[in-house]
Amino acid sequence: MGAVKTKRMPRAVREQQMLDAAVRTFGQRGYMAASMDEIAELAGVSKPLVYLYLNSKDDLFTACIRREATALTEAVRGGVRRDLPADRQLWDGLRAFFAHTAAHPDGWSVLHLQARTHGERFASEVAAMRTELVEFVTQLIVVAAREARRDPDLPEREVAGLAEALVGAAESLAAWANVTPGVTAREAATTLMNFAWAGLGGLLDGRPWADA
Amino acid sequence: MGAVKTKRMPRAVREQQMLDAAVRTFGQRGYMAASMDEIAELAGVSKPLVYLYLNSKDDLFTACIRREATALTEAVRGGVRRDLPADRQLWDGLRAFFAHTAAHPDGWSVLHLQARTHGERFASEVAAMRTELVEFVTQLIVVAAREARRDPDLPEREVAGLAEALVGAAESLAAWANVTPGVTAREAATTLMNFAWAGLGGLLDGRPWADA
Repeated sequence: MGAVKTKRMPRAVREQQMLDAAVRTFGQRGYMAASMDEIAELAGVSKPLVYLYLNSKDDLFTACIRREATALTEAVRGGVRRDLPADRQLWDGLRAFFAHTAAHPDGWSVLHLQARTHGERFASEVAAMRTELVEFVTQLIVVAAREARRDPDLPEREVAGLAEALVGAAESLAAWANVTPGVTAREAATTLMNFAWAGLGGLLDGRPWADA
Repeated sequence: MGAVKTKRMPRAVREQQMLDAAVRTFGQRGYMAASMDEIAELAGVSKPLVYLYLNSKDDLFTACIRREATALTEAVRGGVRRDLPADRQLWDGLRAFFAHTAAHPDGWSVLHLQARTHGERFASEVAAMRTELVEFVTQLIVVAAREARRDPDLPEREVAGLAEALVGAAESLAAWANVTPGVTAREAATTLMNFAWAGLGGLLDGRPWADA
């Protein structure tokens, strides 16, 4: 019945609908349990059309990872204004990160869990996104160090380690926030900001990081 | 030729040798590429004996995850003295964690990478270890909050979030330290301690956490 209507739809639009359905199905069922039948039905297209457009379950999953990874890194970059002080940039970046992962729990599940639990090919797709996030945080710490005029005291390797720690903390916290009822993106961002910027010690002394 | 010598060895010892060989092979080659032939050869036993003792590649991999997870959590718990102040406990716990992951890079690769990239069954084995580490850190933060007399100001949910962030940061940093030449366990622990306890802000102001 929807055949005529369907035919009018450009391929790019139809592909996005398939990817929407696939991200939702992979995110909620897991890669193994997700069926191409279910994805096709949810997308409102025939299964052969999914195969025609996206080739295979593996290729469809890879396309999901790429789309969700790009959306997440763009959300973080887009949330940050480069002319602001480093702590403000980190705060804005964290809020953008947690807002995006909260708004797209299935996408985050694909990136953080599914893409890492089903083989090296998918894991390496997600590793590229992670490298970008780590580089972004690294630059932020370098800027902060320059602002604080501490560059010579903070060796490159420690900066790299701090960036790895911060991205790992954000990933872990986003996964936890998405399965813990009532945790908002802002709360998750605040927790990490307190942890990373003010430090646990300062927080316990009653000196949390303050959004000036 | 070594048949007589082999026969004298108790089953428990032989099994540990198989697990040693399996952890090394899984850690270095990855779960998919690791072959039972290679594991048996490295363990100095026949392949049928590996199957007799450990049943299947999946069961052998599960046994590896359990052994390495237990060893890691015991190393962390064993490195900490409960009568010391919370920041000291965290510092000792972090040093134990990074010393163990540095000394057992193949075991850490199995837990952090391989166990999460090959299906839900293995991922849930590693999730149990993670829960234990998060609980350990949660208790530490609760103790620290009590010492600082800030309990009413630090809600349970924020403590849970901080623990998730810290464990995520430690996992991320351990993976990075193991592939970055020349990073010692102590350096990795110091980076995370600075990040978590003194805070990035304090660090950049020239106030790192001090091991009193």
